[in-house]
Amino acid sequence: MTTIGLIHPGAMGASVGAAGTHNQHRVLWADADRSNETRERATRGKLEDCNSVANLVSESDVILSVCPPHAAEDVASEVIDCGYKGIFVEGNAIAPARSHVIADRITAAGARFVDGGIIGGPAWQAEAGTMFYLSGVDAPEIAALFDGSPLHTSVVSDQIGSASALKMVFAAYTKGSTALLTTILAVAEKQGVRANLEQQWGEAFTQKTHKQVAGNTAKAWRFTGEMEEIAATFAGAGFSDGFHLAAADIFSRLKDFKDTPATSIDQVLDELS
Amino acid sequence: MTTIGLIHPGAMGASVGAAGTHNQHRVLWADADRSNETRERATRGKLEDCNSVANLVSESDVILSVCPPHAAEDVASEVIDCGYKGIFVEGNAIAPARSHVIADRITAAGARFVDGGIIGGPAWQAEAGTMFYLSGVDAPEIAALFDGSPLHTSVVSDQIGSASALKMVFAAYTKGSTALLTTILAVAEKQGVRANLEQQWGEAFTQKTHKQVAGNTAKAWRFTGEMEEIAATFAGAGFSDGFHLAAADIFSRLKDFKDTPATSIDQVLDELS
Repeated sequence: MTTIGLIHPGAMGASVGAAGTHNQHRVLWADADRSNETRERATRGKLEDCNSVANLVSESDVILSVCPPHAAEDVASEVIDCGYKGIFVEGNAIAPARSHVIADRITAAGARFVDGGIIGGPAWQAEAGTMFYLSGVDAPEIAALFDGSPLHTSVVSDQIGSASALKMVFAAYTKGSTALLTTILAVAEKQGVRANLEQQWGEAFTQKTHKQVAGNTAKAWRFTGEMEEIAATFAGAGFSDGFHLAAADIFSRLKDFKDTPATSIDQVLDELS
Repeated sequence: MTTIGLIHPGAMGASVGAAGTHNQHRVLWADADRSNETRERATRGKLEDCNSVANLVSESDVILSVCPPHAAEDVASEVIDCGYKGIFVEGNAIAPARSHVIADRITAAGARFVDGGIIGGPAWQAEAGTMFYLSGVDAPEIAALFDGSPLHTSVVSDQIGSASALKMVFAAYTKGSTALLTTILAVAEKQGVRANLEQQWGEAFTQKTHKQVAGNTAKAWRFTGEMEEIAATFAGAGFSDGFHLAAADIFSRLKDFKDTPATSIDQVLDELS
């Protein structure tokens, strides 16, 4: 039995923690904020509250970092500052170069590092198909923790950075194409040719696009940072970062839909007009 | 019967000219270069060679400009310099603001101006579904020339710029998403995670994407200018030009496939490595 620690469990993190309990591992959580939502998620996931990050770090064999991209370094710092010596799994949507930077800090502090990237939504049921990609020499050990659980795992390679790279190139299309379609509709609306564009697209593609664009607005605020990470990944590989800096821009213009998502395409285009 | 002039008929232009002959209009062509390919296309389209641009301009009631985006101003200049007073149809993939600039020059010279944008491939058969979108006060007159021909027409509005805007927002997705997918595969290859990405995508999406990316390479060289026009269209509407400047960049890296298109995805990725 392994003790797994989860700092600040969000919607995704709590489901990953819950999957960790599947094989009778002990999964701890600790959160400075302790909002009701965090507590409810932790309870749903059968996570054990250990009261402080210091306790969590001292008791955990494995710590999973699952947080918004901008917070990845801070989570690693919290863990290092508490003197952690176990395996740190960096599971966030960050550029491989940033994963390397965090890996260097973690290993310099005497802990071990596994790179990770999650593709899909929260992993409460196996049917959700959520994949936890892992890389690094200790990746197989982490994958084994979730054997048979609702969270599917796959070891990409023994190299730090591969799991992050995979997450980046996958999200580059799903979220990048949504950003592109959102911007196209906004430009078409501004130019007074949206109805013509939609007629040329045809009913099926138009309806699918409206659903995709409006359905994305609740999450747009937190995709901005991820788009910047993808942009950095592309630039790091020698290609233009323009697609995803543009995607970050359009998502940032939709940030006010965080709590009250758009229910129609017209609402999205009003916001962008 | 109307006399229609077509300068430098390319693959698309010749088919548009051929559609013009459907209603027994006389369609003239003239080309300084007179390559064998141009001559063959003109012959196929039943276009009448009038030997010089000066003759074409003096005999035509309507002149159709159908050329690569970078050449649009030059074609308009040639026509203006020959003292043209008929209707000039700007049918190219250019930003609406550029169409306005050309319109101002054409009308200042005493001719009339119709904005246009072609969506689809060459219009040799009606089944190809090629659409010639037109806008401006004289647009219905131009549309009527092609009644019942293999080239479908649609009047977008009486405003200069709408037809160009429609062409831009439509191509923004078809070509923009191809550019994005091409770049994603190149980054994935560089990061050593292409096989993993394709497994996550699944067989159907991967095969479709390979076909789309490799099938685009023959045309990539001439899409660079069009991507820059779309970028200008987005910027002009107050949105980021990043998507399509990035698209222009990746297409420019594929320019050497002009005469010998890639036959496999591996060939495309070799070129980009």
